[in-house]
Amino acid sequence: MKLEDVRMKGFKHRTSFQDAFKIITSIIKTTDSEYISIENSPKRVLYEDIVSTLNVPNFNRSCMDGYALRASDTYGASHYNPIPLKITGEALAGEHKAGIKKREALRIMTGAKMPKGADACIMAEYTEEKDGYVLIHKPVSGVENVSKIGEDIKKGSSVLKKGRVIKPYDTGILASMQVRQIRVYKKPTVDIIITGSELVEPGKKPKQGQIIDSNTYILEALLKDTGAILSSKKRVPDDYKKIKKEIQACKSDIIIVTAGTSCGKKDYAPLIVKETGKLLVHGISMKPAGPTGIGVISKKPVFLLPGNPQAVCIAYDFFVRYALTLMQGINNRHETTAIGTLTKKIASAIGRTDIFRVKYDNAQVEPIRSGGASILSSMARADAYLVVPENIDGYPQSHEVKVRLF
Amino acid sequence: MKLEDVRMKGFKHRTSFQDAFKIITSIIKTTDSEYISIENSPKRVLYEDIVSTLNVPNFNRSCMDGYALRASDTYGASHYNPIPLKITGEALAGEHKAGIKKREALRIMTGAKMPKGADACIMAEYTEEKDGYVLIHKPVSGVENVSKIGEDIKKGSSVLKKGRVIKPYDTGILASMQVRQIRVYKKPTVDIIITGSELVEPGKKPKQGQIIDSNTYILEALLKDTGAILSSKKRVPDDYKKIKKEIQACKSDIIIVTAGTSCGKKDYAPLIVKETGKLLVHGISMKPAGPTGIGVISKKPVFLLPGNPQAVCIAYDFFVRYALTLMQGINNRHETTAIGTLTKKIASAIGRTDIFRVKYDNAQVEPIRSGGASILSSMARADAYLVVPENIDGYPQSHEVKVRLF
Repeated sequence: MKLEDVRMKGFKHRTSFQDAFKIITSIIKTTDSEYISIENSPKRVLYEDIVSTLNVPNFNRSCMDGYALRASDTYGASHYNPIPLKITGEALAGEHKAGIKKREALRIMTGAKMPKGADACIMAEYTEEKDGYVLIHKPVSGVENVSKIGEDIKKGSSVLKKGRVIKPYDTGILASMQVRQIRVYKKPTVDIIITGSELVEPGKKPKQGQIIDSNTYILEALLKDTGAILSSKKRVPDDYKKIKKEIQACKSDIIIVTAGTSCGKKDYAPLIVKETGKLLVHGISMKPAGPTGIGVISKKPVFLLPGNPQAVCIAYDFFVRYALTLMQGINNRHETTAIGTLTKKIASAIGRTDIFRVKYDNAQVEPIRSGGASILSSMARADAYLVVPENIDGYPQSHEVKVRLF
Repeated sequence: MKLEDVRMKGFKHRTSFQDAFKIITSIIKTTDSEYISIENSPKRVLYEDIVSTLNVPNFNRSCMDGYALRASDTYGASHYNPIPLKITGEALAGEHKAGIKKREALRIMTGAKMPKGADACIMAEYTEEKDGYVLIHKPVSGVENVSKIGEDIKKGSSVLKKGRVIKPYDTGILASMQVRQIRVYKKPTVDIIITGSELVEPGKKPKQGQIIDSNTYILEALLKDTGAILSSKKRVPDDYKKIKKEIQACKSDIIIVTAGTSCGKKDYAPLIVKETGKLLVHGISMKPAGPTGIGVISKKPVFLLPGNPQAVCIAYDFFVRYALTLMQGINNRHETTAIGTLTKKIASAIGRTDIFRVKYDNAQVEPIRSGGASILSSMARADAYLVVPENIDGYPQSHEVKVRLF
């Protein structure tokens, strides 16, 4: 067992924070596609461009309550010199009425089809009705208050592109185009293996030296938030054979193992990945979450996350989230960032990427004091990450920084 | 019918954008509470503070792989002058080992309980093992690499407060505190009534003058996104009696009616709210979504949203979303905003709040050209709102503005 030498000696080589992302990119491929109905489409990712097979709207519509008319009939109209037009009838939304001629107008409601011969609408408030005539108090220009054919979406155009994460509004666009089913990337499936002989599940009373497992809950919630499916979750003691057996039993797109990822005597996970696949990253020059590992077993990406819950959160948010985003083919991904000024100075080590938890409020960035990777409650006090790159030794107070909101 | 006079005459009085929020605040009360398990807690809202009944961690733990020792035994140690300490054994995570005395050390793994007598840990990489002794190459300070009792969460403290929207990380905090069930605000229930004789559901072929209903899909997706439950959805033609019957049949916390909210002949919804309850707002000085109405029927808030899909999105995102946030008792709500510079000038009307759809990319804010409220596809091209208040007539190119990301 080659790795035996490494354990209890610390990491020989740490991968840089930036290189970790490059390695992830190199091992991830997108999921297959499936068809879903538009009702279930929000947050799913388009597998292909949606090309409209029709114009939206597919006829000229009034977008006001008022009168459909010929704009040229209104030139010169004013409050003192109103121009009378003969009212030919009324068009409600959903109706189809006969066309109008010169010096005629059709009373029309929002959404109703424009009659032939009319090129504009005037709002009811600039008119007055009298004896079958409407008195026009204001000139209008052609196409005023009219939604033209294809104005919203042109037939043959593609409004929603491959790789787009569907927003609530998009469901309306899809419905307008008469699309009921769309082709999307499948949700990635994930197996999680929580290792640690000291862990008991919530509800059970911990014995001396034992603690409650919180990582299962955190990962379950994070996976849901990222659009992945948790296929299986297992709690396993620090036992080489048991961990290996569970890793080998995984059938999902991605495997996540927590704890036992460092260089301690009982850190079996890196050893198992090395034996049964490829261990591409073991140790990243970052804090927290330095003892993170990344590998591949039978073409399946494997993420080894340090056991401290806060390190799990951070390693997940940066590395696993990135991998799942790539797997889902997302191209309009952008992390929500904000700019603010530091309320106090922060110090960071050269050669290491430091990830601070900060409170972001009204463009003020307040670093959260945290004793170390084990302080999960700092995640509750914070609402953003501040990443200090490896070539920077910190920032002075009042420095302007970009943070990534949770 | 008093309102009869108003129809076809335009709005007599429009409520200001800011006042609309004050009116919403005055008619909303929070929902009741319910108990849920922590697995289902993300995005739910705490109904009460969570006070920890225990210390986390509840014993002193090593947060390194290395050796537990007395810091005072290491003073003066260096690579050239290593100090030998007798190894008394090994503590793995989950184990409870006997204490150590002066000049002794216990081999210890991350997460293991610190033995009595030890006050610090040294990382394995600063040591060397030899003949049952560990040679210390570096002095350590007391409490180095140790997670102290209650360091993460102190017994009796309250990390998660009433009104907090639960984040994925919080589930881990709750699990650590041995909390399995929490009391949250119930999800608000919503009935939607989509009016319009011109509407057909997707899949059916529209006749002359008819269009596809997209608002049902948009609202269903938006409600889900806001943490509300859609109790019922109805499509009703522009028929006074039918709309009134459906409004009176509503049993949910909130009623949303789309279309028929303006001053047209067939705009029955405001009339019905006036007859059966109180119509507090009819017309807001904003664009788009000006013809929005807000009222109360039997203490139930009613939102009348203009029928154009884009206006539905905007009226929802500003008014309904705000109401549902208040109902859920959320106190750590903050809209995700970003600062950027305008790529071109925008013009706005004094006395009216204008809401622009913009594309936000890398601190650049590009206004989306949109012919009017009916251009739903502009919501797909945009990813943020820019609100121009009523006392501002626009902004020049390169002006710095704050936008609200979707």
